[in-house]
Amino acid sequence: MRQRVLTAVVGLGILAVVMLIFNTPGFNAVISALCILAVYELLSAVKCNKPRGLLVLSLTVAAAVPFTGAYIFASVPRFLSALFAVVLLYFIVLLKGFGTLRAEKAALAFFFALIVPVFFCAAVMLRDSFGMAVGGLYLLWALGAAWLTDTGAYFAGIYLGKHKLAPVISPKKTWEGAAGGILAATFCMALVAFLYSLLMYRLGMPIRVDYLRLLLLTPVFSVIGMFGDLAASAVKRQYGVKDFGTMMPGHGGVMDRFDSVLFTMPSVYIAVCNISVVTLLV
Amino acid sequence: MRQRVLTAVVGLGILAVVMLIFNTPGFNAVISALCILAVYELLSAVKCNKPRGLLVLSLTVAAAVPFTGAYIFASVPRFLSALFAVVLLYFIVLLKGFGTLRAEKAALAFFFALIVPVFFCAAVMLRDSFGMAVGGLYLLWALGAAWLTDTGAYFAGIYLGKHKLAPVISPKKTWEGAAGGILAATFCMALVAFLYSLLMYRLGMPIRVDYLRLLLLTPVFSVIGMFGDLAASAVKRQYGVKDFGTMMPGHGGVMDRFDSVLFTMPSVYIAVCNISVVTLLV
Repeated sequence: MRQRVLTAVVGLGILAVVMLIFNTPGFNAVISALCILAVYELLSAVKCNKPRGLLVLSLTVAAAVPFTGAYIFASVPRFLSALFAVVLLYFIVLLKGFGTLRAEKAALAFFFALIVPVFFCAAVMLRDSFGMAVGGLYLLWALGAAWLTDTGAYFAGIYLGKHKLAPVISPKKTWEGAAGGILAATFCMALVAFLYSLLMYRLGMPIRVDYLRLLLLTPVFSVIGMFGDLAASAVKRQYGVKDFGTMMPGHGGVMDRFDSVLFTMPSVYIAVCNISVVTLLV
Repeated sequence: MRQRVLTAVVGLGILAVVMLIFNTPGFNAVISALCILAVYELLSAVKCNKPRGLLVLSLTVAAAVPFTGAYIFASVPRFLSALFAVVLLYFIVLLKGFGTLRAEKAALAFFFALIVPVFFCAAVMLRDSFGMAVGGLYLLWALGAAWLTDTGAYFAGIYLGKHKLAPVISPKKTWEGAAGGILAATFCMALVAFLYSLLMYRLGMPIRVDYLRLLLLTPVFSVIGMFGDLAASAVKRQYGVKDFGTMMPGHGGVMDRFDSVLFTMPSVYIAVCNISVVTLLV
């Protein structure tokens, strides 16, 4: 427990530094590094890290998307060119490893190498579309909906947990924990937004937060985050893996902490592209 | 052989009808039907047609892309929303079928359900971007580069074939056949383009064909088509399947005839978005 809190504190320190470079290409590099670590852990867990070509290709795709995504997605021919090139390369890897590499293994590697960076890339798109002050809170929203839910569910589950939510896939999850997670995320997130808006006011970038929309949408992201957590648990269980890694003492691997973020990040981006929740006042 | 020629003649008749409705939503429907058949055959071949939910979801995605692609790809939030929704649905299918459905099987179904319609959709994009007269020849180019290569390689292989190209994956292919396929495709395609331009002139839609670029690019598409053929053979061999289906007597399934088209179609689209080969004169 002490180790868990310590890692969390270090993690929040890193997050603070990341927020300081949010508006620079350094942020793209952080997302790129996150994608590399996440895809590496995922491919290792599902035993798709061999042959070497499959791993190298997947990590290259994961690393490139956060830098090139904005350029690639801006036009249909460009997007199709990139996708076509990547698919050709996966088929070349499949043909080269024909005797040992099954098509379904290659497909699973392709799936993670595509989905992980495209979804995490929503963080970069939040900044590019909404700017520093507004995009920054949206980013914290995606992280908060995931992590505050996890933490709230953990404590609510310990003290109140009785009815199993998914005994086969993830035996420790309870309905009481889920409810506690949603409540904790919703109210703590409103507090985070309030403190963030005070900070932005101080920094000369006043923002207006629509708290009603925030309170109504956070439970949605909270549920989506829990679904992501459950999906990751299902994958881990199928391949007989307890954690995705050991990089973060007490928390497991990077993907153990970011599995729900992988789903909340695109959700927040999609939602705020359609419904305005935070606006810049200047 | 007689059956093979007969099927080919019927197929060319269907192609003529398809060209007549090229400029209507009927063409989107034809591509949609092609995607449904192709994905159905592929999932059956690689044994990803169970559970039922996986098959239904994959066929729905395959059917929808040719109608909605132009709308979805026009904006980044829309594209991300569609991709996110599809990924969520695949994870729901995975969680529901947790005991029997492996993640890698679901990933292979996802791969085919995504790649097949997105690549074939290039046919619709050729029409939408270049109009009827020019887009029509580009479409024939993609089909011609695939089918003329297949036919040329077949006869050249029979009469001249000596050196095996890929003995493990596809024992009947020879280097002599490949060379004959490229030559046949290149020169027959120039003839097709010439006849097509005469027809368009008669129809009051005169076009100008850059024959040098046509002769230089066709071998590239020809090689890409053969690669697609080889990739499909590799998948069939890994799953112990001889043909993808029996719908087209003498030719096998739809995917046996369209495996190289799956790769030439996006190639032609990507190429002509960057290099103009056919232009409308009015």
